[in-house]
Amino acid sequence: MRDKNIWRANADSRVQCQIAPKFCGICGSDLHEYLGGANLIPTPGNPHPITGETLPLTLGHEFSGVVEEIGEGVDHVKKGDNVCVQPIIYDGDCRSCVQGLVNCCDKNGFVGMSGWGGGLSEHVVLPASCVKPLPANVSLELGALVEPLAVGWHAVDISPYKEGDSVLVLGAGPIGLVVVQVLVGKKCKNIIVSEVSKGRSEFARKFGAHHIIDPTSCDVVEEVARLTGGKGADVAFDAAGVQIGLDTAMKAIKARGTLVNIAVWEKRATLQMNDVVFRERHYMGVATFALGDFEAVIEAISTGE
Amino acid sequence: MRDKNIWRANADSRVQCQIAPKFCGICGSDLHEYLGGANLIPTPGNPHPITGETLPLTLGHEFSGVVEEIGEGVDHVKKGDNVCVQPIIYDGDCRSCVQGLVNCCDKNGFVGMSGWGGGLSEHVVLPASCVKPLPANVSLELGALVEPLAVGWHAVDISPYKEGDSVLVLGAGPIGLVVVQVLVGKKCKNIIVSEVSKGRSEFARKFGAHHIIDPTSCDVVEEVARLTGGKGADVAFDAAGVQIGLDTAMKAIKARGTLVNIAVWEKRATLQMNDVVFRERHYMGVATFALGDFEAVIEAISTGE
Repeated sequence: MRDKNIWRANADSRVQCQIAPKFCGICGSDLHEYLGGANLIPTPGNPHPITGETLPLTLGHEFSGVVEEIGEGVDHVKKGDNVCVQPIIYDGDCRSCVQGLVNCCDKNGFVGMSGWGGGLSEHVVLPASCVKPLPANVSLELGALVEPLAVGWHAVDISPYKEGDSVLVLGAGPIGLVVVQVLVGKKCKNIIVSEVSKGRSEFARKFGAHHIIDPTSCDVVEEVARLTGGKGADVAFDAAGVQIGLDTAMKAIKARGTLVNIAVWEKRATLQMNDVVFRERHYMGVATFALGDFEAVIEAISTGE
Repeated sequence: MRDKNIWRANADSRVQCQIAPKFCGICGSDLHEYLGGANLIPTPGNPHPITGETLPLTLGHEFSGVVEEIGEGVDHVKKGDNVCVQPIIYDGDCRSCVQGLVNCCDKNGFVGMSGWGGGLSEHVVLPASCVKPLPANVSLELGALVEPLAVGWHAVDISPYKEGDSVLVLGAGPIGLVVVQVLVGKKCKNIIVSEVSKGRSEFARKFGAHHIIDPTSCDVVEEVARLTGGKGADVAFDAAGVQIGLDTAMKAIKARGTLVNIAVWEKRATLQMNDVVFRERHYMGVATFALGDFEAVIEAISTGE
């Protein structure tokens, strides 16, 4: 069993860093929590099993900052370094963690959502493992984007996407755009985005999508078939989390194609089972990012990939 | 494009066989159609796109028989041979067929469900490709079981199951039992069956299941965790098609585990998305069997595997 202390943010734990946050993104889930929460944030009487904290707590999980202090045993960053924060909280010894799938931890949490301060704090003290150094050519501003980029990176990475595939992306909000960007980086030559908003569609085009379709004015299934030579998309990514989008995407992917859900749903999703069964389609969930994704994204930004 | 004539059962098509059915199984879907149908059977005004037939038609798709006549160009069987019937009907040139996924054909149908006679006929005339010779040591009685065995074979075959995995099977009806039997054949050492009926549970044990649990009297998620050293099942097969079973199985599989749906659902299935997303689980559909599965099953029966 690994040393659980490194996952604890107690003031007396040794392998920690104190960071002054500099840039912090506002995530869709922050808005959800602020306007309609608490949903994921632990409420009084029901503290988070790892942090022990409840409301009120500080938001912000997409952030970069400067190292102010390091604890004993920390050797991968030093005082004054620019860093970004990998905000997942996990216990390290649950059935998922022991397989290395810490983002699937039975007690999983998020810095800036489950406690331990957040990117909107003036100072945070975090386990050293949450703190990732930024290379000299990656600014603190870009550093705050590593987290959402890692979400898209991870989704594409564990999906069955391979070079040559046609991909449908549902929704061109921040995560949909990140998926587009990662697909471009991975040399995808046929990225089809379904988006209702004109502004977001424009962003999708700028980010490198090859086709943008408006589901309110065209038949997505027919259009995707047309744009894929009749075959259907090999993989679809759902970054919208809307029932009609799910139904449509399931029909728009090929037999044995995969629909990857990144979206967080507030209620149950329903499946038209004949579309799943009679075409042997796959539906899979992806959650945030895995160990190693942050490093891969920082490397990709640094090398311009 | 392949010669479509071989998929047509017109009396004048050349590459056909006439068969006298000898043994025929009654499938759950036959009961569905007879008692509560028509569901899959085409109704007047809406003929099957390949057979052109509608109700009334003859049931029976799990059958063996003896070749009575062969058409010109048929050389894999001769008059008097014992055979079994691979009952899938497909057009051969849809987007799925051209990928070789004929069981996912956009116009797919079934002998004994969509037309072309059925196992309860006295004589049927079928494309030669539907007719599979039985080796001398495989009886006509066993030959009628090749079809349901192929369903289980195919489900395990395209699932991510690998030796060493723990498997949960929902339902010990005929298809659940076949899945158990295939898993035993594939050396699975931890087959857990969830079944409410005492009689069916007994069959599951005889077929080789290692653990039988009754979901009405125990907590399936806890019990599966206990029987898998806390990890959860690697793969689950749903041969029941009941909402509560789906919900439970999704929780009972490990992070990144796969739930394989074999069942036919009459209504939409719903998913508790947090169980899918936060554990990165997979849900996949399987449909009947692929080309090659019949031959593999016949070989496995013949060699005693």
